Amino acid sequence: MPSRFELANAIRALSMDAVQKAKSGHPGAPMGMADIAEVLWNDYLKHNPNDPKWPDRDRFVLSNGHGSMLLYSLLHLTGYDLSLEELQNFRQLHAKTAGHPEFGYAPGIETTTGPLGQGLANAVGMAIAEKTLAAQFNRPGHTIVDHHTYCFVGDGCLMEGISHEACSLAGTQGLGKLVAFYDDNGISIDGEVEGWFTDDTAKRFEAYGWHVVPNVDGHDPEQVKAAIELARSHAEKPSLIICKTVIGFGAPNKQGKEECHGAPLGDDEVAAARKQLDWPHAPFHVPEPVYQGWDAREKGQSVQGDWQSRFERYAEAHPELAREFQRRIQCKLPTEITSEAMIEKAQQDGESIASRKASLNCLNELGPQLPELLGGSADLAPSNLTFWKGAKAITPEAPDGNYLHYGVREFGMGAIMNGIVLHGGFIPYGATFLIFMEYMRNSVRMAALMGKRAIYVFTHDSIGLGEDGPTHQPIEQLTNLRTTPNLCTWRPCDAVETAAAWDAAIKRNSGPTALVLSRQGLPHQARSKPQLASIQCGGYVLKECEGTPELILIATGSEVGLAMDAAAELEAQGRAVRVVSMPSAYRFDGQDAEYREQVLPRAVTKRLAIEAGHADYWYKYVGLDGDVIGMRSYGESAPAGDLFKHFGFTVDNVVARAQALLEA
Amino acid sequence: MPSRFELANAIRALSMDAVQKAKSGHPGAPMGMADIAEVLWNDYLKHNPNDPKWPDRDRFVLSNGHGSMLLYSLLHLTGYDLSLEELQNFRQLHAKTAGHPEFGYAPGIETTTGPLGQGLANAVGMAIAEKTLAAQFNRPGHTIVDHHTYCFVGDGCLMEGISHEACSLAGTQGLGKLVAFYDDNGISIDGEVEGWFTDDTAKRFEAYGWHVVPNVDGHDPEQVKAAIELARSHAEKPSLIICKTVIGFGAPNKQGKEECHGAPLGDDEVAAARKQLDWPHAPFHVPEPVYQGWDAREKGQSVQGDWQSRFERYAEAHPELAREFQRRIQCKLPTEITSEAMIEKAQQDGESIASRKASLNCLNELGPQLPELLGGSADLAPSNLTFWKGAKAITPEAPDGNYLHYGVREFGMGAIMNGIVLHGGFIPYGATFLIFMEYMRNSVRMAALMGKRAIYVFTHDSIGLGEDGPTHQPIEQLTNLRTTPNLCTWRPCDAVETAAAWDAAIKRNSGPTALVLSRQGLPHQARSKPQLASIQCGGYVLKECEGTPELILIATGSEVGLAMDAAAELEAQGRAVRVVSMPSAYRFDGQDAEYREQVLPRAVTKRLAIEAGHADYWYKYVGLDGDVIGMRSYGESAPAGDLFKHFGFTVDNVVARAQALLEA
Repeated sequence: MPSRFELANAIRALSMDAVQKAKSGHPGAPMGMADIAEVLWNDYLKHNPNDPKWPDRDRFVLSNGHGSMLLYSLLHLTGYDLSLEELQNFRQLHAKTAGHPEFGYAPGIETTTGPLGQGLANAVGMAIAEKTLAAQFNRPGHTIVDHHTYCFVGDGCLMEGISHEACSLAGTQGLGKLVAFYDDNGISIDGEVEGWFTDDTAKRFEAYGWHVVPNVDGHDPEQVKAAIELARSHAEKPSLIICKTVIGFGAPNKQGKEECHGAPLGDDEVAAARKQLDWPHAPFHVPEPVYQGWDAREKGQSVQGDWQSRFERYAEAHPELAREFQRRIQCKLPTEITSEAMIEKAQQDGESIASRKASLNCLNELGPQLPELLGGSADLAPSNLTFWKGAKAITPEAPDGNYLHYGVREFGMGAIMNGIVLHGGFIPYGATFLIFMEYMRNSVRMAALMGKRAIYVFTHDSIGLGEDGPTHQPIEQLTNLRTTPNLCTWRPCDAVETAAAWDAAIKRNSGPTALVLSRQGLPHQARSKPQLASIQCGGYVLKECEGTPELILIATGSEVGLAMDAAAELEAQGRAVRVVSMPSAYRFDGQDAEYREQVLPRAVTKRLAIEAGHADYWYKYVGLDGDVIGMRSYGESAPAGDLFKHFGFTVDNVVARAQALLEA
Repeated sequence: MPSRFELANAIRALSMDAVQKAKSGHPGAPMGMADIAEVLWNDYLKHNPNDPKWPDRDRFVLSNGHGSMLLYSLLHLTGYDLSLEELQNFRQLHAKTAGHPEFGYAPGIETTTGPLGQGLANAVGMAIAEKTLAAQFNRPGHTIVDHHTYCFVGDGCLMEGISHEACSLAGTQGLGKLVAFYDDNGISIDGEVEGWFTDDTAKRFEAYGWHVVPNVDGHDPEQVKAAIELARSHAEKPSLIICKTVIGFGAPNKQGKEECHGAPLGDDEVAAARKQLDWPHAPFHVPEPVYQGWDAREKGQSVQGDWQSRFERYAEAHPELAREFQRRIQCKLPTEITSEAMIEKAQQDGESIASRKASLNCLNELGPQLPELLGGSADLAPSNLTFWKGAKAITPEAPDGNYLHYGVREFGMGAIMNGIVLHGGFIPYGATFLIFMEYMRNSVRMAALMGKRAIYVFTHDSIGLGEDGPTHQPIEQLTNLRTTPNLCTWRPCDAVETAAAWDAAIKRNSGPTALVLSRQGLPHQARSKPQLASIQCGGYVLKECEGTPELILIATGSEVGLAMDAAAELEAQGRAVRVVSMPSAYRFDGQDAEYREQVLPRAVTKRLAIEAGHADYWYKYVGLDGDVIGMRSYGESAPAGDLFKHFGFTVDNVVARAQALLEA
């Protein structure tokens, strides 16, 4: 039986070899954290390499994602479907072993990491999901949800602001099954961190209400083991284990220095490390006994088998709950939900209300049917209107709720939502003002990159928010959302389109959806049955004219009503004007060419787009012959009506600009 | 003489009256912090209402910017040029009294605040600027820079991640003249914060190395005064004074509750507050003795006069330094700098290097001439190449440096840069990978909104960064920067355009500049003298053809070389193809119509834009008849060459798409 050191050295060797072969990568972190990983994975981690999606597995997150070879080594060694060839193909096109761990590429990658600090926040989200799912589904004598979330973090993660947001909330929520390991190696890219990072991290985390195990020698398996025992024994608080480690441990000339962080060691140093570590094997060669020491398949099969038996007993005792659990875990919506009827009803009701209010109506309709909805807001619930009538706060005492008061923590919220949806069993929705999307921006991108169903409720969507002024008024944010690959953005023009947007959001399981909603009231629009159905195409003819249109007005959200009024005036002047409502350019671009041509015929070049957002985006639809009434500057502080007038969002201006186009 | 309570009530009355009149705003914070503000402003704040730009004034930052009426009341009462009419015009179009304090609107507003947490980080930047400017300019017996930075923060600021980044660094830097007052009122928008914010904030800040004065009764002027004395006596550490306050203090039925945070109190409650506070005066009426008690003009004039005398003695002893100080404070560049010669030299040298390397060359050239350059990177100095040969780290022991190791704190960096430039005396530049611009995104926007000269060095600008993969590869970020009003973005194609971009950046004093730079080498382009000069137009003809072009290729950065190669091939096929290099769309859009028509003649509709960023942006220049070779998905992890090929950035593909356009 190989020693623990030998087992850990397999990680070190594979990591330095793969980085060397790729001529690119980060050997330092895997070599520094190998001993910690060895103890955690071999003695504690509950997982089954044969079924990486087993719902009750422990979650493992490598927040310092640049150390990806640590994770790939672990997955390979313990028996996941990740071959040696894949390791040898590290950082090459189409390999499962990307430079940073990419969710969906190799089995066993729980989340995409690399952008620092977000993995830690994902882990907080996973731990929240576990706790809430357990509270919702476990029954006396039947524990079907009971797993830990383990997370590795580096200095970078702890310097990032998001670590504050996520860990502060984790402390408040008392996430006792969350255990983070801090790779306290004293090195970051600029060199020794003491010049820029002098926090007393133990004290900081105690201030958050965490249980801290300080001063652990990260190269002493017994100390690591004792620390994990301590951490697991504290069931009421999340734990931080602070491990002193040597970055690049084993590379005799480079360990403990920045130069082993993000570059290959070089052939000579790799050879020297082999000697230093007493690892005489060829590159990428792992001796069979070492493989055997790591193989987790049998144990994993057995522990999952035990769970399966427990689940079967649960299913006998609580058949309905068991079916519901399976449905939730499989991300399936209930077979009958009224989300489409909700759209029709909104059309019939014909209410002229703010789209944020219309969104609340949707939540009140869908909430009771979708217990997987796990809502929240970054301390703007009364403004975002996300706390629906069945919402119940999740607290340490009552974790079975469905709503998180995230506090003023937008980025934390976004990354925690990602952790919740990655864990499974939930559809998270989270809210803030559209402008503060910027605070959480990269977490929105990460949801889109991972293709996960998170739903963002971004209210106060334009200068229409009024008096709060330019710091609060979005201009370029809509373009930012729309140009984010795999993010579906909606800016509905009335309660009906809002209902359609919610319907689409909950049904979209391949990526996130952003709902961009108004603070102010929006006029209801009349629609025929076919028009109602075509909202889902993202852009459709809301007002048709006789014959071929001379001009097309394209608008979204609060500007659709304006376009309709302007069209009526132009029509009174004898002009043939079509109005296209474009609530979701993402959906419209996804339609076939024929449909798009029907809505925006190529032959009609006189096109005027109207949106109280940045103008540039719309040239994609109006071209060089068209025009855009949009924003090109920041807003101002004033009542909304004054601002719309000031910035040219008036019927008179739309008509004038349309006439200019028509006469050009 | 009015009592302190009476003086503070003037703030409360003006605040609740202005919010009531505007029917919009936040009375809670001004009423809760009025007593603290009264002590600070009347007993400590060194300022002169007659000269709000006096360089040695103390800086006051209201990080909880929604409490803007607190600041407006203080400015009005102490004698700044902010009339009662302006207060009555709160939150109306063209008023100086915007919903949140807007830099440049009313005198005495040191920074725009509202987006929570950033004001605190601005204050950290101001304190860094003060300390470094003092170290650079003070001489034995001549202290001309010596002032405090005071900052009010709310619960929201302290929940935001940026508070962690900025305050951690402030602790490391030992900013002894920074004093923050925490308005610990236990209320945020969702209600009582204990449900989502349970930090031991004193302990947290002690962990950062701050001096903390806990448990101060924020309504007891003596306790506040004692706390300020304590804070000022700790010269080696920043201080946090934790003030227990009652939000909306004085409103008998609403104080201590969320409902007084962000909405008018209502006429009845305003009347009841008048009674409760024993403030029998009419709305907006402040009795003369109260005005006298607040008037800071005489004292301000006197204290500035003392400083002026000191400065005159300094100017006698150190005439050159004094002139340099004036130059720096007035944001004037030295009369002779070689930044234009640097462009010409780069053209002559003809080096084919990465634009990040070209940027380092510029820093090495400009650095010695511009001691106001205050650089830094969010822990990526060796990658961003921002630590030039004359760079010297700023440390507590050696604050006279010119470079901040910001640590892995992008958002903190951005907002600290804003504080540094707002303080005056410096041109801050800060660096990270372009993708992590997203972490600091809203601080970039704030610099643009305020019109301040911050320079961003964003390297690793596309899939060209290679193996680090999709999490690190920017796609939509360039569009995000370009659609940000008043932000000037450059993506240079070679060392020459990089030099032009740096030249433009340092000369642009009306807003920030983003330099978007490659990791990989870029081929040098030949240019005539007129071409060289026209780089500053942002877009120019880099390769002309004979006669009217049949097709125009438009490219930026690393894709310019590709466009040139493709053009050569198309030319060999007998096609008349022009290549336009467009390093800065911001600059190009700012040229007159004639110039733009020369470069992109309206009659030439066959246009192909090529950029390894999101395609949508370019329809603005190619229209519906053109085409774009850009990115519409995320990148992948692989060597850069493989990726460019995979995503169609090849001569063959450009030629093929060009041919398709030509034959359309």
